[in-house]
Amino acid sequence: SYVVNGKNTQKVLEVEDGANLFETLISNGIYVPNTCGGHHVCGKCKVKIKTAQTQKIGEDEGKFLTKVEKNMNMRLACFVKVHSDMEVHVPAESKSNILTKGMYFLKSMDPRIKKRSLILSKPSLHDQRDDLRRITEEIGEVVKVPLSVLKEVPIVLESNNYQLKSVTRRKELISIESPESDEVYGVAVDIGTTTIAAYLVDLRSGERIDVYSSVNPQKIFGGDVITRIDYTMRKANGLHEMQKVIAEELNKIIDVFCRKNEIDIKNIYEMVIVGNTTMLHLALGIPPKNIANAPFVPAFTSTIEIKASEVGIKMNSEGYIIFLPSVASYIGADIVADILSSRMYEKSEFSLLIDIGTNGEIVIGNKNKLIACSTAAGPAFEGTGITFGTAGVVGAIDHVDLTKRPVYTVIGGGKPSGICGSGIVDAIAEMIKMEIIDPRGRMRSKDEISLDEDISTRIIQYEGEPAFLISKEIFITQRDIRQIQLAKGAIFAGIKVLMNKIGIDFEDIKRVYIAGGFGNYIKPEAASTIGLIPERLTNKVIQIGNAAGAGAIMTLVSDKELKVATEIARQVEYTELSSTSEFQEEFINSMYF
Amino acid sequence: SYVVNGKNTQKVLEVEDGANLFETLISNGIYVPNTCGGHHVCGKCKVKIKTAQTQKIGEDEGKFLTKVEKNMNMRLACFVKVHSDMEVHVPAESKSNILTKGMYFLKSMDPRIKKRSLILSKPSLHDQRDDLRRITEEIGEVVKVPLSVLKEVPIVLESNNYQLKSVTRRKELISIESPESDEVYGVAVDIGTTTIAAYLVDLRSGERIDVYSSVNPQKIFGGDVITRIDYTMRKANGLHEMQKVIAEELNKIIDVFCRKNEIDIKNIYEMVIVGNTTMLHLALGIPPKNIANAPFVPAFTSTIEIKASEVGIKMNSEGYIIFLPSVASYIGADIVADILSSRMYEKSEFSLLIDIGTNGEIVIGNKNKLIACSTAAGPAFEGTGITFGTAGVVGAIDHVDLTKRPVYTVIGGGKPSGICGSGIVDAIAEMIKMEIIDPRGRMRSKDEISLDEDISTRIIQYEGEPAFLISKEIFITQRDIRQIQLAKGAIFAGIKVLMNKIGIDFEDIKRVYIAGGFGNYIKPEAASTIGLIPERLTNKVIQIGNAAGAGAIMTLVSDKELKVATEIARQVEYTELSSTSEFQEEFINSMYF
Repeated sequence: SYVVNGKNTQKVLEVEDGANLFETLISNGIYVPNTCGGHHVCGKCKVKIKTAQTQKIGEDEGKFLTKVEKNMNMRLACFVKVHSDMEVHVPAESKSNILTKGMYFLKSMDPRIKKRSLILSKPSLHDQRDDLRRITEEIGEVVKVPLSVLKEVPIVLESNNYQLKSVTRRKELISIESPESDEVYGVAVDIGTTTIAAYLVDLRSGERIDVYSSVNPQKIFGGDVITRIDYTMRKANGLHEMQKVIAEELNKIIDVFCRKNEIDIKNIYEMVIVGNTTMLHLALGIPPKNIANAPFVPAFTSTIEIKASEVGIKMNSEGYIIFLPSVASYIGADIVADILSSRMYEKSEFSLLIDIGTNGEIVIGNKNKLIACSTAAGPAFEGTGITFGTAGVVGAIDHVDLTKRPVYTVIGGGKPSGICGSGIVDAIAEMIKMEIIDPRGRMRSKDEISLDEDISTRIIQYEGEPAFLISKEIFITQRDIRQIQLAKGAIFAGIKVLMNKIGIDFEDIKRVYIAGGFGNYIKPEAASTIGLIPERLTNKVIQIGNAAGAGAIMTLVSDKELKVATEIARQVEYTELSSTSEFQEEFINSMYF
Repeated sequence: SYVVNGKNTQKVLEVEDGANLFETLISNGIYVPNTCGGHHVCGKCKVKIKTAQTQKIGEDEGKFLTKVEKNMNMRLACFVKVHSDMEVHVPAESKSNILTKGMYFLKSMDPRIKKRSLILSKPSLHDQRDDLRRITEEIGEVVKVPLSVLKEVPIVLESNNYQLKSVTRRKELISIESPESDEVYGVAVDIGTTTIAAYLVDLRSGERIDVYSSVNPQKIFGGDVITRIDYTMRKANGLHEMQKVIAEELNKIIDVFCRKNEIDIKNIYEMVIVGNTTMLHLALGIPPKNIANAPFVPAFTSTIEIKASEVGIKMNSEGYIIFLPSVASYIGADIVADILSSRMYEKSEFSLLIDIGTNGEIVIGNKNKLIACSTAAGPAFEGTGITFGTAGVVGAIDHVDLTKRPVYTVIGGGKPSGICGSGIVDAIAEMIKMEIIDPRGRMRSKDEISLDEDISTRIIQYEGEPAFLISKEIFITQRDIRQIQLAKGAIFAGIKVLMNKIGIDFEDIKRVYIAGGFGNYIKPEAASTIGLIPERLTNKVIQIGNAAGAGAIMTLVSDKELKVATEIARQVEYTELSSTSEFQEEFINSMYF
């Protein structure tokens, strides 16, 4: 047995010899910060172990801990095996993950969920109104009462002496509760192809109470939307499997939110989900197969409001999930939420919005017109297909500056284990500036170019082609540069096609919103150097982080914003790039540096 | 194996030696007329057996068959055991049961369920509308699409080459089907405390296609509403049990409708249920306990619309059940439906409506005002508490006329097995006319009165009191007369209280509607003789049979009628008799003959 100090709790747990500490804590309801689920990857599950212990810290664990931390007896819970009594202190709070940040500007609160105090007159022979009417006449207009609530009506009324709390959503009475019940929560979720970002929101204040991000568990079925759609078609039960894992993940997130913040799951009444169109289909269990093939027709794009129980999500039993509307197969609810939180739809001047996730979506417009397209550009910027590419996690090189020493910075400090999108963009931009890469994207060899020796020695040969060392072990290959060239070319070409269509020039664009986890970390100058965004727009860039998540929160706390989102989805004109020869042309023109 | 000829089918069935023919037929989907479920009671499951057979017809079976039928080799299927090959002919159609008749006058069809043909344009790169929008834009305004339908959208569209049938209910798309699907059915049900009457209705024509009546299976938990409410309170799972048996019974009825009429259960899209307030609570699984005790407050009285699946009823998986609204604990949706089908609510003159079922409900009013009360008067008129009392089933004495020989008639002919409400009322009326019963309700002995010998010998002694023989074995006791006195006194007193309240006299009442199975069979003169209805109103009586069922059908085929029913329920003023001393007084005044 050992003692654990949680946030406000002290628990004594008995475990079997050799039990993993991380798993022990989690399975006993003690939240430990993590994003990798105890797989030795994220380095976040730091706990302080008070009792003397003899286990040595191995190399894998050690790289996550500073000297100070080691001296304080800090450990990563996922590496610790319990062999004797120990006292464990769990830190009070984890920091929010890089993917969950996003700005949002709420105009006013207008939550659909309303909790009210009701003090009812008691029935008598002179007031024989039925229980339900007694409640609804007090609340005002109630049109719908689910059977489960109706079944509880006589019991709740009697046991609380005709004083209670009612919870309505629009005109539906979704819950009746004891008079002590006060809390009202909602959850906003951005289901990305790669990552899920979730936010716990207090629906009384609009306050964002907690954030959580995790890897989309559908990843095991395939890294991109096409592979996942294929899986639903190849495997009889594939669609159901994928719906199930996402529901389980959302339930896990809700569970963590409840434990960490000591709230009752019954007090979570609503969830708003955004994501690309395929993710929405998969989360609802709706066949997405026509998304994958021309003419790329989704089953639905409209707003879906369903009871959480219909998709196996556990919150208040009559709680709702809203799936925000999409525009087309490749402009999903995430982009609608981006547009909402950027407020570009209400400005007179034109804005450009680029969301670089697993795909790269582009929107141009103003209050009169919004047009959008999608390019299969994202994965390279998320590290996919790059030799040492990785997501923006601890250990990733996130910035490169060849004039400094060391030439790189690492997320979380320490030894780099890979290079993420912003690092790659920086590196290539630096190499372009030093003319290590020629305008066509070819890497020059040492002999072709005169460089300081320190830089020159970084040019090595890899698989018969030049490569460029960033750290001792991590380098950029010619193939990596080609990947980035294709990706940035596609995005730049997409921007050009939309600009041509709407009939405007670079000067007309007053703001460039860059959304998405990657977008939040690149340096605009580097992005402009490699030609991802037009040079003239560099100083107009606003990095809005997870704008999709921010938009989801806005619609969660305000029904007015939900109506605006619906309006936006209707208004956006989708441009199918695959059907235009114009795009091919622009693409070829945009490929060079 | 043996051959069975059904309605349009010929089937060969293999059975084990000794199998019961009734069960064999039913379990193989061959409908045999019956109301007792093969329990040797109703005598309706007549079949013709062609192959020579040796089994003798026993006495129990024989009494249901005429000589001609016996010579034709007719048998009751429930008595037949299969020991060798036989050819069985099942008659084409059963007659409707006595409880299911009711008049209704439909103004116009206005069904909520609409089935439409859609021929959609196919998607292309120039028409990338999502599948759902493609459908809904063709239909017009669709606001709600259940997840189960949305999941089928891409599959149904593709497999039917973009031609299909849509089924909407109000603004919800509840089904998408192959283009061949045409049929649209609904079911109307009157759940009485004692009996259930159900109607299969074609929602395209409004035609009543089939009727079915059965005993309320909740009877095993208690004969009246109070006993059943008690059961829900005494037994932990009692409410659930009662909900379950009624759902199973409704499923059985739907099943019979489908088999008999060769329709697909998926094409039943809506059900309307009426019943007294307690029956509605029990059918929904909502605690009815406060109905039983002062101040008699039900959990709800409003219209309830839910998915059939929520209460375990099997029809189209997104089909709906509507529970019509009630007025109060003892004026239920059945009475609202009575008022609707009588059309008394739209007339300028005053009408009186009496529904005698297990309770006796009374309504007086016109287009400006409707007031109602309920008296615990019914059971005696349904045979409950009467020595030889029985429901209006085969074998029951239904009419008595002491001037004729025999003095009685029997439902279905043959030897009487009991006496039903209309028979009891007749008998007592006749005894009053012959002064065998004095004005206070006391039976005179032979010595007190001079009668024809034939009548005089009918007066016997039973448990120390006089009794009157109707048939050889069936007689009316002094206690029976007291039961009827109490019941008719309560109803008459109820009528008086309502008349006083509304401030009218007998002359003001232009029509008397008598609803309910019993009400359909009594002779108005006899009812007036015993003082059940005022003498002056005898010639104004209109017997409207199962008016509740008729009202249910009206709301099933017309949404306008549903709105009217909702209006009626809101408008009716309920008078609680238990709270007035006036009722006690009128009751005492109304007790004598």
